[in-house]
Amino acid sequence: MKFKILTVALLFVAVCAVAQDERPQMVPEMTEIWDPEVPVITPGETPADAPSDAIVLFDGVDIDREWTNGDGGPVGWKVADGCVTVERGAGIIQTKRAFEDFQLHIEWRSPAEVVGESQGRGNSGVFLQKRYEVQVLDNYNNRTYRNGQAGSLYKQHAPLVNACKGPGEWQVYDIIYTAPRFNEDGTYFTPPTVTVLHNGVLVQNNSKLRGPTEYIGIPEYSVEKHGADVIQLQDHGNPVSYRNIWIREL
Amino acid sequence: MKFKILTVALLFVAVCAVAQDERPQMVPEMTEIWDPEVPVITPGETPADAPSDAIVLFDGVDIDREWTNGDGGPVGWKVADGCVTVERGAGIIQTKRAFEDFQLHIEWRSPAEVVGESQGRGNSGVFLQKRYEVQVLDNYNNRTYRNGQAGSLYKQHAPLVNACKGPGEWQVYDIIYTAPRFNEDGTYFTPPTVTVLHNGVLVQNNSKLRGPTEYIGIPEYSVEKHGADVIQLQDHGNPVSYRNIWIREL
Amino acid sequence: MKFKILTVALLFVAVCAVAQDERPQMVPEMTEIWDPEVPVITPGETPADAPSDAIVLFDGVDIDREWTNGDGGPVGWKVADGCVTVERGAGIIQTKRAFEDFQLHIEWRSPAEVVGESQGRGNSGVFLQKRYEVQVLDNYNNRTYRNGQAGSLYKQHAPLVNACKGPGEWQVYDIIYTAPRFNEDGTYFTPPTVTVLHNGVLVQNNSKLRGPTEYIGIPEYSVEKHGADVIQLQDHGNPVSYRNIWIREL
Amino acid sequence: MKFKILTVALLFVAVCAVAQDERPQMVPEMTEIWDPEVPVITPGETPADAPSDAIVLFDGVDIDREWTNGDGGPVGWKVADGCVTVERGAGIIQTKRAFEDFQLHIEWRSPAEVVGESQGRGNSGVFLQKRYEVQVLDNYNNRTYRNGQAGSLYKQHAPLVNACKGPGEWQVYDIIYTAPRFNEDGTYFTPPTVTVLHNGVLVQNNSKLRGPTEYIGIPEYSVEKHGADVIQLQDHGNPVSYRNIWIREL
Repeated sequence: MKFKILTVALLFVAVCAVAQDERPQMVPEMTEIWDPEVPVITPGETPADAPSDAIVLFDGVDIDREWTNGDGGPVGWKVADGCVTVERGAGIIQTKRAFEDFQLHIEWRSPAEVVGESQGRGNSGVFLQKRYEVQVLDNYNNRTYRNGQAGSLYKQHAPLVNACKGPGEWQVYDIIYTAPRFNEDGTYFTPPTVTVLHNGVLVQNNSKLRGPTEYIGIPEYSVEKHGADVIQLQDHGNPVSYRNIWIREL
Repeated sequence: MKFKILTVALLFVAVCAVAQDERPQMVPEMTEIWDPEVPVITPGETPADAPSDAIVLFDGVDIDREWTNGDGGPVGWKVADGCVTVERGAGIIQTKRAFEDFQLHIEWRSPAEVVGESQGRGNSGVFLQKRYEVQVLDNYNNRTYRNGQAGSLYKQHAPLVNACKGPGEWQVYDIIYTAPRFNEDGTYFTPPTVTVLHNGVLVQNNSKLRGPTEYIGIPEYSVEKHGADVIQLQDHGNPVSYRNIWIREL
Repeated sequence: MKFKILTVALLFVAVCAVAQDERPQMVPEMTEIWDPEVPVITPGETPADAPSDAIVLFDGVDIDREWTNGDGGPVGWKVADGCVTVERGAGIIQTKRAFEDFQLHIEWRSPAEVVGESQGRGNSGVFLQKRYEVQVLDNYNNRTYRNGQAGSLYKQHAPLVNACKGPGEWQVYDIIYTAPRFNEDGTYFTPPTVTVLHNGVLVQNNSKLRGPTEYIGIPEYSVEKHGADVIQLQDHGNPVSYRNIWIREL
Repeated sequence: MKFKILTVALLFVAVCAVAQDERPQMVPEMTEIWDPEVPVITPGETPADAPSDAIVLFDGVDIDREWTNGDGGPVGWKVADGCVTVERGAGIIQTKRAFEDFQLHIEWRSPAEVVGESQGRGNSGVFLQKRYEVQVLDNYNNRTYRNGQAGSLYKQHAPLVNACKGPGEWQVYDIIYTAPRFNEDGTYFTPPTVTVLHNGVLVQNNSKLRGPTEYIGIPEYSVEKHGADVIQLQDHGNPVSYRNIWIREL
């Protein structure tokens, strides 16, 4: 009912305009969509804080609620001072839940004491769906191969810029991940895509992955169908720390 | 030289493996890319702070350095308390510089005093390349059409969620924009795409625009070739405020 | 075994080249993929003839084997002289089988006797998955709206060129169709895409559909999740004929 | 003027419908686009025949009008019986004209006398923009690596099926090619895409190339900015013949 008078008036104008314009004019209401209503959520106080629809994967205290080690057993990494730190030799840790598309917020810190160089310094990684690594590395004044540095999709896409903070400083990854869809033969119908903001700076812009992360070889050659899967954090032997990890399923 | 010994060793293994595997094995160095070196920048202290490679469009004090009104004259909006506020009737303001692809950080606040409803409450907008609006609206407890609410690409894509803060609170848009590329006949070869984080929450995920924002009519029908263009902020008659605006060209 | 000698030789060269090149050289076999073997089919004698892996939907004789009318009953169109012709008022006909992605070959002929103009002349249509129309129309010396002419994706994409033959002449559509994939909320994850060759001439090049074909309104607004579905041929009241229809599932 | 009466009538209905529907109804004319008129061309008598807007690259008689050898000199291949045949050692031949996006029709025949196996039998190739090879090979009862067989985008995409005819028989490639667009740094903004029909059968469906064709190594690593470029036919030492070559610029 509410559009009635406006509509009649505008349509009158529209019809009069037909001779000039060829197409009859539309009215604004014709391109308004009211349903379904967009879900309302409460954002965090700052963009780093978990919004109301996020799953908090690590709150700084309890790592075992949402994570296990690679065998499904308890996490062997150390929790202290509101963060969890890689324990050399304890192996990866991974979420208990499996995910498809998501937005992931994760903060990390490479050791304040600088040890090693290139891939040997402050190396860890965030594996999306257990297969696709966003590299974590101390690249502050530490050159390595461009497709293996912090913010890279390891050995597939170098970051657009090196936005690293120094060793010992907390850094942020905001990751938007779209899982692959598959053809029946197990190849990608659409590849995984990843957007990464590193310390608020865009380093991956909807980058398409060619296949699983491969340390040796060609990613295209090892594509295999998979479903929802876990997030893993890598033990690369360096005491990298993580905190404030939350995820929103998309 | 540095890879020599490792390579010889690994290739020996590789060659021995040929009979089983059909394909000779690669070595890790075959998929390392060192050049060109990724540019180093300094991120802001927090993700909201401008990184070293950003153009600061508004620092809270001087609006006339980077902005004009719609006629190229001085900005008629009020600057006070570190923000600039829409002056009803003064019309849009726009950047002096033109942009192609970019990452844009902008903070906005709808009036603390709630006036009006639906599109009439705290309405403004960020126009990318002068044509593509990311809607600014006070949608806190204020329903409107889904494709016209805060975080929508106006009348084209509703936001994934409503992540609004309340009236009078500062809110953040982090926008990643890829400009269209054109065919010779003026149609899109690739459409504009927009990713938006609203208060840190993903509300547009590489959404493809169908054409320029149209209040009336069908966006596809008004696509026209254009090049780099300005950012505009809309005067929709409501005293919406903006602050901390920076942009990184991609 | 067979690569062994070549590989050793080439790798020797590769290793010697390391100092100059940074990356060790690969050998050709590293990028050969042998498995799985590509399926072998027998093409038709000419490209118009059905290949061995096609389903022949109409061979010029028996229309009832693969087609029904809109109610699942027998086809009310006339079969004669190796073709089937629209019977005004009999309504659409559709395949018994449902399809996802496919390559479709179909030949059509508008009446030799020219009657009507614009959309009123030789009008029919091929509906992909019951929803997406490739327009069939006698556009030979007969102008109509560009997004509704022969070879258009009706009201969404005009053909690149008008490649029509005259009334009474047989014409060919070769259509490559990729079905949409859906998000959980029923929107497109990827839209339907269509490539059309009209008489051997490209008229649609992987065009993305915005939604179902709509005579009135905006296609985006009526997108709904669907699975495999039938091919329909339209009864638009004009005696358009069809012959030599085959389809290959992709 | 012509829509006036219909429009008034329909809009009356539309306005009456508002209370139920929320959105006022549109009328059919609102989604008709008349301008610009679609260019009219004359298709070939059969889809294999050049349409009126094609450039005939080889008509069976004169190879030197549109082709040169690799040095810009006269073509060293033999023309006889309406076709041109690779002359071993004469090297590639290439078009005088450079192309961007196009539709290419080309017919080829591997030698009736079978010699060699795998890549050694009836090997040649069509290089799009001098860089991207659609493999030509006698794969009739001749296995080779899947990503190197006839209809493959060499070492990047295996054909969907093996649609080869036998040695000595004429075969057809219909190729739809979209050239890459580049970022300023020389990487692909959009990759080259290729659709191929082999003897009327779809073997490549808008396949995305990863980079130039590489016999050895990883295509991504040798991407470089380029503009319009020539079509080349490869001399791989086997007397493969070509005929009826035409191209339409898109």
